[in-house]
Amino acid sequence: MNTVYNFSAGPAVLPKSVLEKAQSELVNYENSGMSVMELSHRSSLFETIIQGAETLLRELMNIPDNYKVLFLQGGASLQFTMVPLNLAQNRKALYINTGSWSKKAISEAKKLGNIEVEVIASSEDKNFSYIPEVRKEDIPQDAAYLHITTNNTIEGTTFYELPDAGNVPIIADMSSNILSVDYNVADFGLIYAGAQKNIGPAGLTVVIIKDELIGQVDVLSSMLDYSVHAKNGSMYNTPPTYGVYMAKLVFEWIKEHGGVQKMEELNKAKAAMLYNEIDHSTLFSSPVTPKDRSINNIPFVTGSDELDKKFNQEAVKEGFENIKGHRSVGGMRASLYNAFPKEGVEALIQFMKKFEAENGGNK
Amino acid sequence: MNTVYNFSAGPAVLPKSVLEKAQSELVNYENSGMSVMELSHRSSLFETIIQGAETLLRELMNIPDNYKVLFLQGGASLQFTMVPLNLAQNRKALYINTGSWSKKAISEAKKLGNIEVEVIASSEDKNFSYIPEVRKEDIPQDAAYLHITTNNTIEGTTFYELPDAGNVPIIADMSSNILSVDYNVADFGLIYAGAQKNIGPAGLTVVIIKDELIGQVDVLSSMLDYSVHAKNGSMYNTPPTYGVYMAKLVFEWIKEHGGVQKMEELNKAKAAMLYNEIDHSTLFSSPVTPKDRSINNIPFVTGSDELDKKFNQEAVKEGFENIKGHRSVGGMRASLYNAFPKEGVEALIQFMKKFEAENGGNK
Repeated sequence: MNTVYNFSAGPAVLPKSVLEKAQSELVNYENSGMSVMELSHRSSLFETIIQGAETLLRELMNIPDNYKVLFLQGGASLQFTMVPLNLAQNRKALYINTGSWSKKAISEAKKLGNIEVEVIASSEDKNFSYIPEVRKEDIPQDAAYLHITTNNTIEGTTFYELPDAGNVPIIADMSSNILSVDYNVADFGLIYAGAQKNIGPAGLTVVIIKDELIGQVDVLSSMLDYSVHAKNGSMYNTPPTYGVYMAKLVFEWIKEHGGVQKMEELNKAKAAMLYNEIDHSTLFSSPVTPKDRSINNIPFVTGSDELDKKFNQEAVKEGFENIKGHRSVGGMRASLYNAFPKEGVEALIQFMKKFEAENGGNK
Repeated sequence: MNTVYNFSAGPAVLPKSVLEKAQSELVNYENSGMSVMELSHRSSLFETIIQGAETLLRELMNIPDNYKVLFLQGGASLQFTMVPLNLAQNRKALYINTGSWSKKAISEAKKLGNIEVEVIASSEDKNFSYIPEVRKEDIPQDAAYLHITTNNTIEGTTFYELPDAGNVPIIADMSSNILSVDYNVADFGLIYAGAQKNIGPAGLTVVIIKDELIGQVDVLSSMLDYSVHAKNGSMYNTPPTYGVYMAKLVFEWIKEHGGVQKMEELNKAKAAMLYNEIDHSTLFSSPVTPKDRSINNIPFVTGSDELDKKFNQEAVKEGFENIKGHRSVGGMRASLYNAFPKEGVEALIQFMKKFEAENGGNK
């Protein structure tokens, strides 16, 4: 087998050492005679795992004590409903529309019927190629929250600076750059993230929520109620136990490798190499405004659908997996999460140079 | 390490050969250079896995073509909300109350506010130690559905015969005996099951739903809408990919071992051995009416809290894990799912005999 580099936007590449550790103890965890998948979620062995995962995440993200950490299911998509259902019934909820996932969050909030949804800024006018400016005076201070998507996985943009929302809590879908860009948790009311990019396998959702936002109203389902999950330490029902275990291993790996600041530094370096190649190319270009460019998801195009297709076909043959752009936008996209190795970026750049030389680029 | 027998009610024991296969390919699935956890859910490799899982489940349960199979998240607990939300808004929903999980299903349906919940039968009068009889004339034919819990994990009772509900579709929480007791899918309108007993790891939920029940009304969240998941082949959002993969391996194992009928036969034999021991004991007894006894979850007691505690303490030392009864009922409980080996039942019986001889039993 040749080396494979997995540029998938999620589920995505995991650290090799984490996978090897999971493999080594898959059948017999800590000499218990059982797999982690077979452990009762009420057993002391699993309680140590879930508490360990929480402790590590608190440490890595410097989560203040007045925030709860919840391990849930349903992905960001279920949070699109849970956030307004818990925080904004019969109130105003503000959204910044920065791409496909923001749009879904907005449309799910509207579906609930009793939320006054207001989109206060959007970059849809230019294909979501930038992050719109928001001034504090544009933010009604009676709103329940301001929702942003910190990193737009499909469009490749990132909020590096948060809007000044005054007293309105900022709610962030951080699915694609949690633990990869070093945000200050205290700046948010609630952060949520599907695990399948920088945390672990799909099927686990992390929610970090400020205590004062919990339990404000009645929620029509226990499973959709943050207060129920908070009260039960994420054990109201059986959590996705193996996902929590994998997340713990990934958190340990991040800690061993220097923490979130170090991750951001390494991710910036990987992304800079690729953006540099794109910006100096006569064939490839980035559709995104430079200052808002994501270090995690890097879309690029040749300007020709035919050449994009050819690139994608040849890339797969060379072991570059999942580099095809999202079906909604086309082109190419390199997702460079924490676990993506620098060598993969170097190999991609070599391949891009070769492709450019063979296909009309004159660098 | 001594042999460990895991009597957990869920997450529960998985077939050893399945765990070994998962271990062997954890880092490198089918020579792809990637773990299953790293596969994009849109990749052909993962599509083969999820389609394979569905095909196998259809074959094992003989699922008619006019039923959809959905792989979802959130466990039975989220189904307690999804079922009434999709099927009974502004209508009457009937429930048979046979234990803790039925009660939760009932209380979640009531929470929605626009469901007329009617409990048409209950065994709460005798601590849920039997399955109540229901006559067809007790079932209002204008109801949206009749909900039952086919196997009561905590109380140890089972519906071996379904109520005759006329034209009212039967909805079943089959979490703890799906693929273990051979039901006829065509007798149900909808079946749901958390995976963590007879299917695979926690975090995956299987829903089998008759086409005509899908898409009847507007649902307030895409993630809670069966029609959205059905239309997208369980890929509306990222499914719990590794859970689906593990389920496929378990389905293959069941098929190799003779299918669901054979599983039921083996489970009956294992349960009969244990019930025989309990019924001939002067120390242990079963609280459950014989004809309704579960072959999957077998609660038993000594009649003394002190002896129960002693039994549970000594059992753990002998490698019998998770045999303590549910915290809500006490005593002991042996959960004997498909993957639980006959040798474990034999070992338990030997241990019970020894305990009885040492603690005042006079068999």
